[in-house]
Amino acid sequence: MAIYLVKLFISYRQGVLDPQGVAVEKAAHQLGFERVRNVRVGKFITMEIEASNEDEVKREIEEMAKKFLVNPVIEEYSYEIEEVK
Amino acid sequence: MAIYLVKLFISYRQGVLDPQGVAVEKAAHQLGFERVRNVRVGKFITMEIEASNEDEVKREIEEMAKKFLVNPVIEEYSYEIEEVK
Repeated sequence: MAIYLVKLFISYRQGVLDPQGVAVEKAAHQLGFERVRNVRVGKFITMEIEASNEDEVKREIEEMAKKFLVNPVIEEYSYEIEEVK
Repeated sequence: MAIYLVKLFISYRQGVLDPQGVAVEKAAHQLGFERVRNVRVGKFITMEIEASNEDEVKREIEEMAKKFLVNPVIEEYSYEIEEVK
């Protein structure tokens, strides 16, 4: 068994209203960062998973995404896996 | 001028209590994902910035991080820049 570090990036799909992104963009403009646009705020989740190999980690992540981490109607996700031990 | 896509990853520093991370880990365990641990939930922000070069984009991001995006007492961040146009 090895330990894998997983980085998961969840963001709203294009076309889905993202009020947090709108708020950040507005703040940026008010503070003088005028050239910033199309701000989207999503989730960055890191975790460690113990598994025998990377394929097992992938299955685990995709199952978790489907079961409770990601709402596929409004969100999309990607991830990176790195063996740490 | 070019358009750069920026991906910003903000997470709590080690040692800072992360209640969302604790909640996700608990949910994972209850749903049978027993080998998941050390879950941390942070922010994944994407934006486009118009600038003459990558150094300008870096300065812009670091200034925004300092001014309003990141709380350095409890959070840390990293980012990636990619020219899109």
